[in-house]
Amino acid sequence: MSNPVLAEVTRGNLVESVHEGVVAVVDADGRTVLELGDADRPVFPRSAVKALQALPLMESGAADRFGLTPAEIALACSSHSGEPLHAETAAAMLAKAGRDAGCLECGAHWPLGEAATRELARSGERPTALHNNCSGKHAGFVCLACGLGEDPAGYVGPDHRVQREVRAAMEEMTGENLSEAARGVDGCSIPTYATPLRGLALAFARVGTGHGVGRERAAALARIRAAAAAHPFMVAGTGRFDTEMMGLFGERVFCKTGAEGVYCAALPEVGLGIALKCLDGHGRAAQVMLAALVRRFLPLSEPESTRLEALSHPALVNWNGIRVGGVRPAGPLA
Amino acid sequence: MSNPVLAEVTRGNLVESVHEGVVAVVDADGRTVLELGDADRPVFPRSAVKALQALPLMESGAADRFGLTPAEIALACSSHSGEPLHAETAAAMLAKAGRDAGCLECGAHWPLGEAATRELARSGERPTALHNNCSGKHAGFVCLACGLGEDPAGYVGPDHRVQREVRAAMEEMTGENLSEAARGVDGCSIPTYATPLRGLALAFARVGTGHGVGRERAAALARIRAAAAAHPFMVAGTGRFDTEMMGLFGERVFCKTGAEGVYCAALPEVGLGIALKCLDGHGRAAQVMLAALVRRFLPLSEPESTRLEALSHPALVNWNGIRVGGVRPAGPLA
Repeated sequence: MSNPVLAEVTRGNLVESVHEGVVAVVDADGRTVLELGDADRPVFPRSAVKALQALPLMESGAADRFGLTPAEIALACSSHSGEPLHAETAAAMLAKAGRDAGCLECGAHWPLGEAATRELARSGERPTALHNNCSGKHAGFVCLACGLGEDPAGYVGPDHRVQREVRAAMEEMTGENLSEAARGVDGCSIPTYATPLRGLALAFARVGTGHGVGRERAAALARIRAAAAAHPFMVAGTGRFDTEMMGLFGERVFCKTGAEGVYCAALPEVGLGIALKCLDGHGRAAQVMLAALVRRFLPLSEPESTRLEALSHPALVNWNGIRVGGVRPAGPLA
Repeated sequence: MSNPVLAEVTRGNLVESVHEGVVAVVDADGRTVLELGDADRPVFPRSAVKALQALPLMESGAADRFGLTPAEIALACSSHSGEPLHAETAAAMLAKAGRDAGCLECGAHWPLGEAATRELARSGERPTALHNNCSGKHAGFVCLACGLGEDPAGYVGPDHRVQREVRAAMEEMTGENLSEAARGVDGCSIPTYATPLRGLALAFARVGTGHGVGRERAAALARIRAAAAAHPFMVAGTGRFDTEMMGLFGERVFCKTGAEGVYCAALPEVGLGIALKCLDGHGRAAQVMLAALVRRFLPLSEPESTRLEALSHPALVNWNGIRVGGVRPAGPLA
C-alpha cells in the first residue's frame, strides 16, 4: 500500500524535502474516523506510549504509596530535555522509594536540550542517568518495582515483572498481541513492541475517554492526563512541541512524541485517539502532521487557531534570522 | 514518477523507518550510468557544491595571491564541525586577505560537532561566525572579493560580484540555467539554486576528470581534489562521514554532503559523477546511499570493502552500548 506525503519542507518558492506518513484516528469503540496510508502497519511506538507504560505504576498503588506528585507523574510519562528541574524531579522520585540514580538502567547521555547541555558543560559536570530523557519513566519503573516488593535490578529486561506488567497494560489498551517476534530494544534499553497504528490509536482514544477500560484504569488515565496538562514542562521541556501543545490546550489535548517520527495523542472532548508515524522517522514532520490533525478534529477559537499555526506551519529561519522556508502539512492534511 | 526506497533503518528484526531517494550517476560526457527515481528533479544542492563554489577563488588567482594552503583550500570547500583547528584556519584565511571575522556574513552558530560545542561552552566562550560550518567557504568568498578588488561587504547577495562569479561557474559545470525562479536562501545566507540532479552529477564527473572544462579549470579542480584528499579533516571533522570516506580512499573519492539529504561525489578513476538526494532530507540515509554507490562503482580491495562496511551499514547503538539496529542500503542499492 502506498503512503501519502503528509508534510513538506519549503525553501523559497519550492518544496525542498517531503515526508510520507501513516495516520490512524479512531474512537474508543475502535471505529476508524480517518485512515491515511497503511494503518495496519506495525510500528515501534517508542516513547509515544509512556502514558501506557505508566499505568502499572498508578494501578499498583506504588505512585500513591510513595506519594508521587502530579509533576512527578507527568515526568514518568516524559521524554524530557534534561533541564535541571527534570533531573532533580527524577532524583526526588527515586528518593521517595529509598533509591538513587545508581538504580537507573537507562544509560547516561547529554541532555536533549541544547541549552541544558551547554549549561551542564559550562559547569564542568558530566551527564548522569538522571539527564537521560527517559529518566522519569525509569524512576517510575524503579518505584513500581519497589511498590511491588520486587528487586528493581534488571527492571529493563522483558522478563522482569516491571516489563511484564507494562506489556500486559499495553496489550489491554491496544487490543493487540505484543509478541516476542515484534520486540526490539529501545534507546533506554527497555523492550519496544511493533504495534499496528490502529491499535495505538484505539489505546489513546481510551486514554482520552476512559471508555471500555474499567473504573480503576479510567481513574488512573484521568490522573495521568491531568498531571500532563498541569505540568507540560515535565513532559518535554523548554520550547518543545509537546510542552507547547499541552501548554496551549491543557486537558483538551494529551500528546506524546516517540523517536523515529511517531506521535500518539488523545482528544478527550471529541473522544478520539490519534497515532501516526512519519515513515522516514523525522520528528519535525511528525509534529506538523499531529498539529494538522488537532486542527482538523478539535473545535478551535480564533486565538487558539492562530497559536496552533506556529506548531502546524513552523518557519525555518537561518543563522542570520532570515526566514528561508518552512514546514507545512501536505496532501490530505494540507 | 515514484521514487524508490534506497535506505532503511532496522530495529531488532524489523524495519523501523524507510528513506526514498533519487540518484544520478553520469560520466563526463553526460551519459547516464545509473538513474534511480526522477533524476530530472531539481534539488537545492546546498553545501554539496562547495567545490564548485570555490572555483572562482582558484581561477581568479586570489587563492595564490593570498597564498592559501591546501588545508585552507579544503576548508573553503567544507561544512566543518567548528573544532578549534577549523575556526583557526578560517581566521588565518581572512588574515591573509587583511580581513577578520567581522567581514563574515554567514552568522554565528554553536559548532556542528557536539564535543566542540561542549568544549566551547566549558571554556565559557560563545560561538562566533568562525564556528559556523560554512566559515571556510565564506572566508574564501572574502578572499575572492579582495582578490578581485571588490569590497567584500554584501558578498552573500545574489547580485554581488562574488555570487555572480559563483553562479556562472555552477552553470558552466552543471550545464544548467540557474534562474531566479529556482533561487532560495541557504542557511549561511548565500543563494542556492534548485538544479536537476543529472546536472549536478555531470558537474561532479567533471570535478573528478577535468574533461570538457578547459585546461585552467581542470587544474583548479585537480588542486581542490588534492587538497580535500590531503586534508579530509578540514572538509568535515572528527568522526564525520566525508572525513572518514576521504580518509579511507584519498584521491579516489571526492565527496561532499549538503543539508537536507544531498550528496555529490566524484570517482576520478572510473570517470563518474554522483548526485543524490534522500527525499526526506535525512543525512543518515544520504550517507548510506552514497557509500552503497561507492561500493558499486569503485573497485575495492578486501580491507577497503571491510572498512567501507562501517559507512554503508552503520550500527545503531543505544545509551548502554547495546546494538539495537542499524541503517542499510535498500531496494536497488541493497
